[in-house]
Amino acid sequence: MNQSLNRISVISEHLNGIAMNDTAAPVKTQKEELADFVEIFPILTNEILKELPSMDIPQKNIEWIEKMININVAGGKMNRGLTVLTSLQYLIEGRPLSRAEVFKANVLGWCVEWLQAYFLVADDIMDQSITRRGQPCWYRQKNPISNSGSTVGSIAINDAFILESCIYILIKKYFRNDSYYADILDFFHEVSYQTQLGQLLDLTTQPNRGDFSQFTLDTYRRIVKYKTAYYSFYLPVALAMLMAGINSTPAFTTALDILLPMGEYFQIQDDYLDCFGNPATIGKIGRDIEENKCCWLICQAILNGTPVQIDTLKKHYGVDNPKDVEIVKKIYNEIDIRGIFKKYEDESHAILVNKIKSVKIMPQEVFFKLLEKIYKRKL
Amino acid sequence: MNQSLNRISVISEHLNGIAMNDTAAPVKTQKEELADFVEIFPILTNEILKELPSMDIPQKNIEWIEKMININVAGGKMNRGLTVLTSLQYLIEGRPLSRAEVFKANVLGWCVEWLQAYFLVADDIMDQSITRRGQPCWYRQKNPISNSGSTVGSIAINDAFILESCIYILIKKYFRNDSYYADILDFFHEVSYQTQLGQLLDLTTQPNRGDFSQFTLDTYRRIVKYKTAYYSFYLPVALAMLMAGINSTPAFTTALDILLPMGEYFQIQDDYLDCFGNPATIGKIGRDIEENKCCWLICQAILNGTPVQIDTLKKHYGVDNPKDVEIVKKIYNEIDIRGIFKKYEDESHAILVNKIKSVKIMPQEVFFKLLEKIYKRKL
Repeated sequence: MNQSLNRISVISEHLNGIAMNDTAAPVKTQKEELADFVEIFPILTNEILKELPSMDIPQKNIEWIEKMININVAGGKMNRGLTVLTSLQYLIEGRPLSRAEVFKANVLGWCVEWLQAYFLVADDIMDQSITRRGQPCWYRQKNPISNSGSTVGSIAINDAFILESCIYILIKKYFRNDSYYADILDFFHEVSYQTQLGQLLDLTTQPNRGDFSQFTLDTYRRIVKYKTAYYSFYLPVALAMLMAGINSTPAFTTALDILLPMGEYFQIQDDYLDCFGNPATIGKIGRDIEENKCCWLICQAILNGTPVQIDTLKKHYGVDNPKDVEIVKKIYNEIDIRGIFKKYEDESHAILVNKIKSVKIMPQEVFFKLLEKIYKRKL
Repeated sequence: MNQSLNRISVISEHLNGIAMNDTAAPVKTQKEELADFVEIFPILTNEILKELPSMDIPQKNIEWIEKMININVAGGKMNRGLTVLTSLQYLIEGRPLSRAEVFKANVLGWCVEWLQAYFLVADDIMDQSITRRGQPCWYRQKNPISNSGSTVGSIAINDAFILESCIYILIKKYFRNDSYYADILDFFHEVSYQTQLGQLLDLTTQPNRGDFSQFTLDTYRRIVKYKTAYYSFYLPVALAMLMAGINSTPAFTTALDILLPMGEYFQIQDDYLDCFGNPATIGKIGRDIEENKCCWLICQAILNGTPVQIDTLKKHYGVDNPKDVEIVKKIYNEIDIRGIFKKYEDESHAILVNKIKSVKIMPQEVFFKLLEKIYKRKL
């Protein structure tokens, strides 16, 4: 169909420039790849912003969107985003990737980062979080337009929507003419929905303080699968698979079967770091205990604690007070939760290695590389 | 590509049932068409809900989603939703629509209603609205799961996201095999973005009380175009055009040129009704004055008031107090804002009629029918 039906020009001029004189991309170190990834962020942001003046959007609002994107999308660890290119490199065997392929893999990587930004902006409001990546959460930052000293506040809800829209602007600009365009959209839609279901499960599993009936490992694992594993682990690899021309159901099933448990392992680490990590390293102040969260530590404490310890936990878990938090952490120490975690980490790693070793339908390196990145991480 | 990559089955069994024995749809009255439209709502809701048990989502969360959809998507006037079928009927000349075409047009109509529900749920939080369609706004309703007497609260933000996801579930179920599938997705993405930009413009044009520098008709019209006109008027007609196989840019440009001004006219009526309409009829209690909104009435009052009247407005506009609201309304009456509105309504109608009469690229009835529905409306 005639592609000028829609306002936004379909193919980015930047990509056209690369595609016209395409060559094999040079082999790069991991550090160089990170630098390449970071380098295209302003190009993508500009693709979004440059449409706005001709749409008659006032300069102050364009600056708002620019600031909002910079603060919320950039500055993360970018592991999810980098995974698309890394996976594609292992999926395409026997030839180097072209420069256009590298660029497009990184565009999809940034779309995953944009997706995460959209969720985090909204989650921080819903969880009433204080800081994110070492600075105040977006909704708590100074309103960039108002000079009354107010904060962004609930406008951040709409900003989350705008971050989501950016994903589809970018995908359209760079993939509209690809045969798998609709498949990319389907994946983003579906994974967004799965993540939202996870957030619903999470938010409705912290009802009454002192009621531990829902803090089971089953409930916990269901939340993690939906809220984290699909978008953080499955999505970036699945996008690389689409770019590599993979379209067999067993390949995607295989990927799911490894990447969802890997995502669970990752989130359990995250819960551990929320309580025992260094806030300066992880860039946020953990609040799982204060917020009565169904996290791995409390589920394990209930499984491993004595009735007296569990009673004490019931009194102090979910109270927004440093004294109560301290009591909870004391019991975590009494039941040697660090030892329980260490044992879980070793077992989980062994299971994943075994699963990956049995993969035949696609290169095992895709999965080993990912596992290597997260095993025993400190941030 | 292999369509079982994604979990959700691609073609609804219900539609398959219709398509296998498809016949011309019988001619129906407007009332019967409304009944048909209402009738498919539970079918669509069920398409969404029925996937959840096999995804291991607990029953209480499925009930939450069901309730959330019923309260927020159903119960509106459904004009936007009905417009898809009405437009398609005028676009396809010379033959009756098939039953599958009628059904699919109504699916897209419901997707527009779902889109609106997603925006309204979020807008009500951002605007701190009290009621919607005669009942408390969703975020103020009782939490369906918790028995602590709490409200849905900020979980409604995630519910807005889920409502948006439903759109793409439904489109995939009913349109994945159509040649214009990606075009439908592009339209929903783009119009969502335009509406979010409108919400951003709106929320950042109410900064300091007593500062009228931004309450100009230019600013007002820009907000309305983005926040309302695209999704309420352009989207339903554009979707019908896609179904009718229209893919010429001039046809879409013609539609935009009529439907954006029609949307502006509609919103100006809405602003008028917010102040002077009957809350029982319009289903909500207007709060534009209290919330310092950049609405048509205040822009006109500033244009038409004396310096003394404008000074009084500056003191009392944007104060959440019945006494202040009364003073603002008194000045509206002094400058005969009803008369100004009446004159605008007549002029605007005449301009739209002239525009429609000059349309040659597609049937004029598409636009006349829409205009007829909204001219001099009371709700």
